[in-house]
Amino acid sequence: MSSLPPSDSLPFLSLGVCDYPEHVPQPLWAGYARDQKALGLEFVRLAEFAWSRMEPRPGEYDWAWLDEAVETSAAAGLKVVLCTPTAAPPAWLVEAHPEILPVGRDGQVKSFGSRRHYDFSSAVYREHSRRITRAVAERYGRHPAVVGWQTDNEFGWGDTAQSFSPAVHAAFHAWLERRYGTVDALNAAWGNVFWSMDYSGWAQVPLPHHAVSEINPAHALDFLRFSSGEVAAFQAEQVALLREHSPGRFVTHNYMGFFSAYDHYEVSRGLDFASWDSYPTGTLQAIHEWKLLAPHFALDYARTGHPDVTAFNHDLYRGMVTPGAGQATPSFWVMEQQCGQVNWASANPLPAPGAVALWTEQAWAHGADAVSYFRWRAATVGQEVLHSGLLRHSGRPDQGHREVAALRPQALPLAPTRARVALLHDYESLWLYNLQPHSEGLNYWAQTFTYYRALRALGVDVDILHPDRDLSGYAVVVAPALTLMTPERAAHLTASAGHSRLVFGPRTAFRTAAGGTPETGQFGDLAGLIGAELSRYDSLYAGMTQDVEGEGGARHSAHAWAESYDLAGAEALWHYRGGPLDGEAAVVRHGAVTTVGAHSESLVRGVLRGALREAGVETAELPEGVRLTRRGPHTLLQNWTGESVHWQGRTLAPYSSALLPQEVMA
Amino acid sequence: MSSLPPSDSLPFLSLGVCDYPEHVPQPLWAGYARDQKALGLEFVRLAEFAWSRMEPRPGEYDWAWLDEAVETSAAAGLKVVLCTPTAAPPAWLVEAHPEILPVGRDGQVKSFGSRRHYDFSSAVYREHSRRITRAVAERYGRHPAVVGWQTDNEFGWGDTAQSFSPAVHAAFHAWLERRYGTVDALNAAWGNVFWSMDYSGWAQVPLPHHAVSEINPAHALDFLRFSSGEVAAFQAEQVALLREHSPGRFVTHNYMGFFSAYDHYEVSRGLDFASWDSYPTGTLQAIHEWKLLAPHFALDYARTGHPDVTAFNHDLYRGMVTPGAGQATPSFWVMEQQCGQVNWASANPLPAPGAVALWTEQAWAHGADAVSYFRWRAATVGQEVLHSGLLRHSGRPDQGHREVAALRPQALPLAPTRARVALLHDYESLWLYNLQPHSEGLNYWAQTFTYYRALRALGVDVDILHPDRDLSGYAVVVAPALTLMTPERAAHLTASAGHSRLVFGPRTAFRTAAGGTPETGQFGDLAGLIGAELSRYDSLYAGMTQDVEGEGGARHSAHAWAESYDLAGAEALWHYRGGPLDGEAAVVRHGAVTTVGAHSESLVRGVLRGALREAGVETAELPEGVRLTRRGPHTLLQNWTGESVHWQGRTLAPYSSALLPQEVMA
Amino acid sequence: MSSLPPSDSLPFLSLGVCDYPEHVPQPLWAGYARDQKALGLEFVRLAEFAWSRMEPRPGEYDWAWLDEAVETSAAAGLKVVLCTPTAAPPAWLVEAHPEILPVGRDGQVKSFGSRRHYDFSSAVYREHSRRITRAVAERYGRHPAVVGWQTDNEFGWGDTAQSFSPAVHAAFHAWLERRYGTVDALNAAWGNVFWSMDYSGWAQVPLPHHAVSEINPAHALDFLRFSSGEVAAFQAEQVALLREHSPGRFVTHNYMGFFSAYDHYEVSRGLDFASWDSYPTGTLQAIHEWKLLAPHFALDYARTGHPDVTAFNHDLYRGMVTPGAGQATPSFWVMEQQCGQVNWASANPLPAPGAVALWTEQAWAHGADAVSYFRWRAATVGQEVLHSGLLRHSGRPDQGHREVAALRPQALPLAPTRARVALLHDYESLWLYNLQPHSEGLNYWAQTFTYYRALRALGVDVDILHPDRDLSGYAVVVAPALTLMTPERAAHLTASAGHSRLVFGPRTAFRTAAGGTPETGQFGDLAGLIGAELSRYDSLYAGMTQDVEGEGGARHSAHAWAESYDLAGAEALWHYRGGPLDGEAAVVRHGAVTTVGAHSESLVRGVLRGALREAGVETAELPEGVRLTRRGPHTLLQNWTGESVHWQGRTLAPYSSALLPQEVMA
Repeated sequence: MSSLPPSDSLPFLSLGVCDYPEHVPQPLWAGYARDQKALGLEFVRLAEFAWSRMEPRPGEYDWAWLDEAVETSAAAGLKVVLCTPTAAPPAWLVEAHPEILPVGRDGQVKSFGSRRHYDFSSAVYREHSRRITRAVAERYGRHPAVVGWQTDNEFGWGDTAQSFSPAVHAAFHAWLERRYGTVDALNAAWGNVFWSMDYSGWAQVPLPHHAVSEINPAHALDFLRFSSGEVAAFQAEQVALLREHSPGRFVTHNYMGFFSAYDHYEVSRGLDFASWDSYPTGTLQAIHEWKLLAPHFALDYARTGHPDVTAFNHDLYRGMVTPGAGQATPSFWVMEQQCGQVNWASANPLPAPGAVALWTEQAWAHGADAVSYFRWRAATVGQEVLHSGLLRHSGRPDQGHREVAALRPQALPLAPTRARVALLHDYESLWLYNLQPHSEGLNYWAQTFTYYRALRALGVDVDILHPDRDLSGYAVVVAPALTLMTPERAAHLTASAGHSRLVFGPRTAFRTAAGGTPETGQFGDLAGLIGAELSRYDSLYAGMTQDVEGEGGARHSAHAWAESYDLAGAEALWHYRGGPLDGEAAVVRHGAVTTVGAHSESLVRGVLRGALREAGVETAELPEGVRLTRRGPHTLLQNWTGESVHWQGRTLAPYSSALLPQEVMA
Repeated sequence: MSSLPPSDSLPFLSLGVCDYPEHVPQPLWAGYARDQKALGLEFVRLAEFAWSRMEPRPGEYDWAWLDEAVETSAAAGLKVVLCTPTAAPPAWLVEAHPEILPVGRDGQVKSFGSRRHYDFSSAVYREHSRRITRAVAERYGRHPAVVGWQTDNEFGWGDTAQSFSPAVHAAFHAWLERRYGTVDALNAAWGNVFWSMDYSGWAQVPLPHHAVSEINPAHALDFLRFSSGEVAAFQAEQVALLREHSPGRFVTHNYMGFFSAYDHYEVSRGLDFASWDSYPTGTLQAIHEWKLLAPHFALDYARTGHPDVTAFNHDLYRGMVTPGAGQATPSFWVMEQQCGQVNWASANPLPAPGAVALWTEQAWAHGADAVSYFRWRAATVGQEVLHSGLLRHSGRPDQGHREVAALRPQALPLAPTRARVALLHDYESLWLYNLQPHSEGLNYWAQTFTYYRALRALGVDVDILHPDRDLSGYAVVVAPALTLMTPERAAHLTASAGHSRLVFGPRTAFRTAAGGTPETGQFGDLAGLIGAELSRYDSLYAGMTQDVEGEGGARHSAHAWAESYDLAGAEALWHYRGGPLDGEAAVVRHGAVTTVGAHSESLVRGVLRGALREAGVETAELPEGVRLTRRGPHTLLQNWTGESVHWQGRTLAPYSSALLPQEVMA
Repeated sequence: MSSLPPSDSLPFLSLGVCDYPEHVPQPLWAGYARDQKALGLEFVRLAEFAWSRMEPRPGEYDWAWLDEAVETSAAAGLKVVLCTPTAAPPAWLVEAHPEILPVGRDGQVKSFGSRRHYDFSSAVYREHSRRITRAVAERYGRHPAVVGWQTDNEFGWGDTAQSFSPAVHAAFHAWLERRYGTVDALNAAWGNVFWSMDYSGWAQVPLPHHAVSEINPAHALDFLRFSSGEVAAFQAEQVALLREHSPGRFVTHNYMGFFSAYDHYEVSRGLDFASWDSYPTGTLQAIHEWKLLAPHFALDYARTGHPDVTAFNHDLYRGMVTPGAGQATPSFWVMEQQCGQVNWASANPLPAPGAVALWTEQAWAHGADAVSYFRWRAATVGQEVLHSGLLRHSGRPDQGHREVAALRPQALPLAPTRARVALLHDYESLWLYNLQPHSEGLNYWAQTFTYYRALRALGVDVDILHPDRDLSGYAVVVAPALTLMTPERAAHLTASAGHSRLVFGPRTAFRTAAGGTPETGQFGDLAGLIGAELSRYDSLYAGMTQDVEGEGGARHSAHAWAESYDLAGAEALWHYRGGPLDGEAAVVRHGAVTTVGAHSESLVRGVLRGALREAGVETAELPEGVRLTRRGPHTLLQNWTGESVHWQGRTLAPYSSALLPQEVMA
């Protein structure tokens, strides 16, 4: 990284590490704590998954080792982040209460032997979750070295956000009764007249699995809502106990990138901020499954991940918790940051030299307050033996250790981020979209990411927000895939159009909150704002394309999806050429609102470029793999490629960053 | 479509629509019925899946809405086709009798929540099926507007033709005992000496799933026969009740293309005619899984489907029911005709402009009496929200509506079809072939379709028939994959060779009715007719080929399968060149009988061309995507491609039809 | 085959056939036996899977048919190998004791209907296994024609080596208690501190399935050990009974190629020698799943299999049983030898003309005492109807019959094999490697085979041995993937380095016997011998490569895996160039020991060539598909390709062998 003088007047990025002292002999602990401090780390995350050591037998607590671990860290000058250990219920609890185990979609009880083997709807497990949370919070909640808490770990990992247990079934019935009051109301809302799916009693409603074929999307949607609520309630119980017994400490949860099975906004209510676990090289594999990027990216970015993939999640989690009164700016943590190779992708390449710096500085630029490396020393036992740490199995420093040592977090002050563009994201839209994708070539994340990536390639900073958040203050609001529309949401967006340029993507307002489609057709309640209604949508096989033509004969080629519009006030900016949609409108504009019906990366970038410029947001044309991000007075310029890049008179070495005054790069 | 004057003297193709008035508010019903009539539709299919509205609670019938729906249609001048609603048992019945649910091959009970969640072997469900059938038949069976009945819906959809429930297990044991009398007879028939599979009691016979590996094909074959019989018995009960309570109305069932899990001939006994549901763009995907067509076809025909795929099913279902005394000609209906995009393929492109006309006219030319579009208005609730209708979600006309409006069914008289070529098809042969395909590159349908397609490319009309049907009157009989041979069948075919040219494909007469192979080897009882016996069969990986050489050095390249013959009276027309079969006979002829051992599209076309010409059947050489079909005095010439085609001095516009006097195109 | 005069002074290769007289009418038996003898066969294997005919009802034996079968063979001058019939428990036993059925990893009981439907841990089945073994051994054990026994059939086939039944669960608990004594010892050994997996009672330990995600590899490893022990105990019971009741006869088991789910060395203890079932064309498919060979091999060798794949298993099973005192040389049988097409691959091409001779002579050259063709006549019933035999379904001779008739086994004397190179193989290393492959592009077999293939391409004969076997007498010892290291094994290898050149491959000594990784990092106890320790390992996606450079700028390109070393006494022979490992050591040498970290076929061949030459082992540079194998005074030179090959002044016809005096080809 090229350098700026340290900003002494501001707090700066805090570095930390996830450590499991219980995994190594006790005589090593003090030395490790001193080494951590010497490396420039300020905090250590402890006690994740440690229930079997906190409470080896029912009700018999053993705090001695953890007392010593906390004291050892404190003595070395480290702050401590503690975890509730509930992601790993001990074997004795499972033996006593096998009913706490979750049940998979296939009906199979998931057994003890890895982690997350609990059912959110188990009253028994909830009781034990509260009990152990209270115990650990009482013990350490006021310890001066303890600065905050992580609840549980990675909700949803291992496909555990939904369970299909008898407890879930009963709770789902109760939830439906609360939501709908009468079975007839449920029948009406779900459209159960279709295929004779009407119920005459709550008990008749099955869990949405094992059906002969696809179930009613309304049924699936409500089960997702219900299950999300169970996760939220589980977390809320822990948060309340931590607030009570550990005043003044932050509470967060470490989410994962692109997890979709619960509403992260709902689950995050009550947290101080959201955290997430960033594993760029492993996550790259996920986006290749979306068939979104050209295949060569799989290799080009195999050693760094793709910058926009990681950035998307930074921006997502930064916006997860609405700052409370008196909080100037949203923040987030990277609670686990890859600092060597992972062990869970189909291949696990070593990170490129410099990748740890790229990742750390990028996290900072997107607003992170802290980055915590996973993990201190590579495990010599257990499932993650092949995962790296800052230290190797042998205890000697690995490459990540050397890269962390070279960082200068003092140069990375915790100034606010100030995006002028909001990108709207909504888990209910995600669910409806992905329940019925209608196209092998596209899904909610892929479509949403396409818009995000175009914005980032234009050099623009982005806030990712829930659509019902306050949108005032944004020059441009982009809603790539806001499938679910309600009258309230339509009114909110209409109000936003009074002060912002709006851009909508395909399938906007295609579905109702109940899970159907509006009786008036797409765009339902939003039709007035968009000034058009759906004509037709086309779903294209890989290899099929649909031309789009604009003013002056400019052309783009859409793939995967193309929807066309009948005008009702809007003007058509782009038209389809050839194919079944020949001559129909592909992009329409109605005042401050532009709606894009064709899925084409280049078209999307063009439309966004126009909207940004119109709104007075300056844009850049960044080369592939080069990205600009601004935080406070600084602009971070990064080259994520393995080649030198020449841009705007600068030469960027491979895998390198430059921290510039913001005025240098607008 | 270019035009001929309407044939006033003949009844003509009847158009209709599948409608679900219960899905939309009642005030819309009368207008919709008038619109249907105005569009040129003659009938409407009602009440499919409507059990939960007919009988909301056990024994409590609500006919008011359906009375009104029927009356509304009748008042608009529409004929009504009604359905028994048994494809969708209501939730209260499942709650009271969960044992009616089917059990999958994996042992999992299939639960309520979509459709077809019933077990054909459940005595309880059979009773309720009869009860609701009687109720609806009594109510509407003599209504003057009601012209016919559809039983249930798409038997076998969702892999429901076979169940693995306790009820099935008991019924299978009883069936085996009836069939074999003694366990020793079963052991002998199945060859249970192999792998020590002998039984000493009926109860020992498992359902054919959960075995360590492949089960005895004889066991699998008999379970398919048993299961098929259960479907047939289920339908027969409904047919009997409909005959009793609705005299003079037709009874049919709407089958699906290429479904294989039961013997459609057996199940169709007692129907007036067969119907099928034609979704050309979705079905295209199935045949790509056969790896039969060059990959580019997936895109070339993505918007129309392949003409021969749809035509095959027209010809299949036209021949499904043997016309009774006094019926001049077989007939069939297209009970559901795609008229926009479907929602169930991996991508769902819009149909090409003109596709609705192509499909409708093709159905007519292949002998359909009626074509019923699916569905009137796109559903705004339920699983099929993304499926199209003649009206969009919003109620406005979609493209299909415009194309139907442009049709002139009066030009399409219901004259007889008169094929001179019979293609033999047999579900038991299909089962045996596909139970042990021995080759990744070929299956029963793919092999059978290869011969069909060659015939259609030669401009020939084809009757697809059960091999035991009367074959007199055909100039050429083609049996592409008649694997199962019995002495009776052999005698029947031998008799046919007295008046027809016969062409057999590979694996003919390779298996016995018991599921083994003849002790005398292939061709067993048919050896005398074929004049040869099997030498060897070769199963080729993709990428391997086997040359075949004929008179004068002509060459073809076989793939997937090559079997060779030792002559025993026949002469060899083609020989293998190179490879393990070098010099052996690939195609043999014995009098009127030609047998083809090599799988090669061009060789097959050549052999068939020769046989047709010899038999005096005129052939054409049609360009790809161009097809000729004759009905009564007319010849329909169609171009299914997106390009103009010049042929025989005519220019065919993309996706177009021309209706010519038959003498114009021989 | 070109020829040498018969060696009258030595016994020679014995040919036989697997026959199932019970599958054909009794009147055919005597003629078949005479035909077998006339074909040059010396023995026949009988009674495999014949339990239901030996004991049609509980306790009611029927020996008449088998008496006659044995006598008929004996009368024709054939020796008889008999089988215990336990691979196919009869239906009446399953009906009486359904608890003998195995349970799959998915929790599903595997039902009757194919074979291997028994649980090794079922006490009930063990009792019946002993009972029927005693019965058949008492009846035939001293019959003069009976020369030996095959126990059961193909342990592990159909994924049956591991069961997940209640009986297994109980036995596993007992096994753990015996192994570890206390739960705390188990917790420590398995590293159960990780993810809170500590147990406080044996009953808490689940079977290693149904967990939320990956289980502890230590847990999986011990379950593999336990399950392997159950197979071994099962076989040992049969062996003991056969020894008692059939003195002087050999006892063997017919294994399969590359089966991995139990420790074949452990299971083979007590056998006279190992046998295996060789199906070269089917097995080829397995190695393509390893993505090891260029895709064109799939077609090039579709009709013969790859020579090294079959040879690997010959060499593996030759070394399976350590010769007892007084046994000069290890031996093995090919108990089932493909002699026509198989029926179980995704395609099943006919063998090339000459393939039966290639296979038979190769087996001899690798040390086989006998080759037994599978099977006499193709079955006309049951699961294997599409499998070939020496006779066709019709009873007429097939191509394999003709090729066997042309063999001259008298020219193939049973001289000793004398390899100077040992290749070390260990099932525990295999398990640990494949439990956590960390790379999509490589697995234990693929890595091991890469070294084997390089040795064979260099014209070298190889003994495949357990690493703890006596290694004295070998010039070169190659350990391609010896992942699991113990102090004892390290000492043994260190001792070996006193007299042999050693070559290690990647991941050597990466794991401990407990299933973790050494606290001192790779190479743990072996570090002193190797003179280096691990720096880093890189796991590469397909398409990623890593250059390796040696003296004088020679280059190789590694793929899939690259590990680098820090020197601690060794010198670096090859270095990585470019990428994250740039400049680090890729191949290191420490005295007599060379360790290869980069996976590159050409590098491996180069390193092995150097080690062989240094050790005085002469090498050749064989063309693709040409192989040399020495036995006693002879050298067998084979061309497995379909093209003529010119090499060393000789012309080798396609698919041909030449038997030369050893001095001709060094």
